[in-house]
Amino acid sequence: MKVYHLYSGGKDSSLSAWILERLGYEVELVTISFGLLKNWRYARETAENLGFKHRVLYLPEDILEKAAETALRDSHPNGAIQYIHERALEAIASMPEVERVSDGTRRDDRVPFLDLPKARSLEDRFGVAYIRPLLGLGYRTIRELTERLFNVEMGESEELVKADYEAELRDLLKEKGFDPRAIFPKSHQQSRVLGWKNV
Amino acid sequence: MKVYHLYSGGKDSSLSAWILERLGYEVELVTISFGLLKNWRYARETAENLGFKHRVLYLPEDILEKAAETALRDSHPNGAIQYIHERALEAIASMPEVERVSDGTRRDDRVPFLDLPKARSLEDRFGVAYIRPLLGLGYRTIRELTERLFNVEMGESEELVKADYEAELRDLLKEKGFDPRAIFPKSHQQSRVLGWKNV
Repeated sequence: MKVYHLYSGGKDSSLSAWILERLGYEVELVTISFGLLKNWRYARETAENLGFKHRVLYLPEDILEKAAETALRDSHPNGAIQYIHERALEAIASMPEVERVSDGTRRDDRVPFLDLPKARSLEDRFGVAYIRPLLGLGYRTIRELTERLFNVEMGESEELVKADYEAELRDLLKEKGFDPRAIFPKSHQQSRVLGWKNV
Repeated sequence: MKVYHLYSGGKDSSLSAWILERLGYEVELVTISFGLLKNWRYARETAENLGFKHRVLYLPEDILEKAAETALRDSHPNGAIQYIHERALEAIASMPEVERVSDGTRRDDRVPFLDLPKARSLEDRFGVAYIRPLLGLGYRTIRELTERLFNVEMGESEELVKADYEAELRDLLKEKGFDPRAIFPKSHQQSRVLGWKNV
């Protein structure tokens, strides 16, 4: 029972990976990269600290280009992040060896998030099971589990280097001459998992 | 970290209980009864076979009365089942010792099911965390986990005696002189967990 789990190195995707392992799945973490930055290395480092198998999946840069256009048109990153997330899940689900794909999206997330028709469509189109271990958990439950399990580094999202879609999207916007700060909401606290607690 | 888990003895509520335990929670199973039947004994028996702590929580019969009226008015049990489920969760959440309440509802369930506003309202009104371990799992994932874990007895829902709300609702309707078969859809395959596999 192998599951390919979309992974950023953050709390939510790390907690989900732990839950999948507790349910008896063999977990392989997958971090998306468009090849602009090496920020997938932070996810790799966390994956290694946690003892999970990890791979980088490169997506075509035109997906990031389209996401950047969307972000510029919307003056907001949500549509772009949603677009990348859907393409990332599809890219994993379309790999021939993949029967199960998962991510760390939560009940209280707005973006990225697959509603029920989209979740079922992903499963049907690619013949996979889509598993979201955090979907039935509220923020209190997620907090109590992550506090029990992980050593976490907190920081502003601009300063904390993470392997999420935001970093490369910001980078491409800068490259195109736009100020990402005009598009992304004022930076908020972000987290990065360093390793297990008390291990 | 103790969680009170709404329990019928079926596959979904048993799988959820197992997941909660795997996440490190101390699980106490709670089966609802209105005192009309002793069908909670089937949940108790399964709980004992699985090694979980179990209690019966009696709800006032007027809740079942109101559910029966709803079922008769709708000529369908969905509204009634939903009504009982919400009152059951509230009854557990309102016990002073309860900080976490959970159930076995699934992503693909229509009834009983709490949408996001109702889930948050339950948490806010009673100061509890509401945990649904199966919410992010599709039918394939639930099937592969239950097949791996449990010995299951299958049967028609009219014949298979279970500790769900349906049995007492049918019983009250009969007592009132109505034929439950006019209200409940034609019986479908139901399941009851007998115990762990290979133990």
